[in-house]
Amino acid sequence: MKMVEVKIEGLALDMTTNTPVVILSPEGIDKVLPIWIGHAEAWAIAMELSGVGSKRPLTHDLIKKVVTAFNARVDRVEITELREQTFFALIHIVNDEKTWKIDARPSDSIALALKTGSKIYVNEELFDVSKGSASDRLNMPTDPESLRERLKKINPEDFGKYSL
Amino acid sequence: MKMVEVKIEGLALDMTTNTPVVILSPEGIDKVLPIWIGHAEAWAIAMELSGVGSKRPLTHDLIKKVVTAFNARVDRVEITELREQTFFALIHIVNDEKTWKIDARPSDSIALALKTGSKIYVNEELFDVSKGSASDRLNMPTDPESLRERLKKINPEDFGKYSL
Repeated sequence: MKMVEVKIEGLALDMTTNTPVVILSPEGIDKVLPIWIGHAEAWAIAMELSGVGSKRPLTHDLIKKVVTAFNARVDRVEITELREQTFFALIHIVNDEKTWKIDARPSDSIALALKTGSKIYVNEELFDVSKGSASDRLNMPTDPESLRERLKKINPEDFGKYSL
Repeated sequence: MKMVEVKIEGLALDMTTNTPVVILSPEGIDKVLPIWIGHAEAWAIAMELSGVGSKRPLTHDLIKKVVTAFNARVDRVEITELREQTFFALIHIVNDEKTWKIDARPSDSIALALKTGSKIYVNEELFDVSKGSASDRLNMPTDPESLRERLKKINPEDFGKYSL
């Protein structure tokens, strides 16, 4: 499985199903991977992207605190596969002695990666596997440039209605 | 600080601010403690209360998985204090050797307690401290019986709009 590092291209909203979408893209490669996520997780990701802090620990802060309490850290997160229209991810947690790979949803993994400053990797094959179906579902243009153009219209603030 | 074990009396919605409220009550003592929480956390608590499972790990499942990975478990959660209109909580995580007390919001603590089958404790003083102000904010009756009566009208399904 060849993993490529990705950045978060943006957040979007699938208007048909009112479902948030997070768009991932590798540096220097003109491909995009849209992943449908929950509202709460979209809000958590939007909070991180906007750099707005919170007085009290949010849920992904709490995960970070638990990991830190055990003298460990989040090393990286990986979006590994697509099974029955569901993306799977692994959170790599490390301490001085070993590595744990925790099965997780991509949304939590991405939120936690942002929270901990960890890198996000995607199984390269997923960019091809999900190309057609994902864009169909989103009713979005298939080429990255048009997709990016469209995503510019959507701001993290759109998720602001999910208040603390 | 005297701690009393509580059960979740129910979930409500503060119509004025559109904020969910979780209502805690000690067994055998006729007092209630309403705590304002976020939509995402209310949804997580509602999911647990309704017993509806999820194919993929939700965010509080992920916390449980991380704790389990470190050969530890959630022992109990405590709502400890009210400071500047914000309730504070501690999640007690234990392994064979030691106990960690993790600073958290009551909402995450309660969701995690439900997820792990752990007990929820409240600093007894909070039932008196928050009595007036909490009920005022909710525009709810101050006596537990009337409050319970009113809460019957609110179902976990009301939080169902926050979909996965």
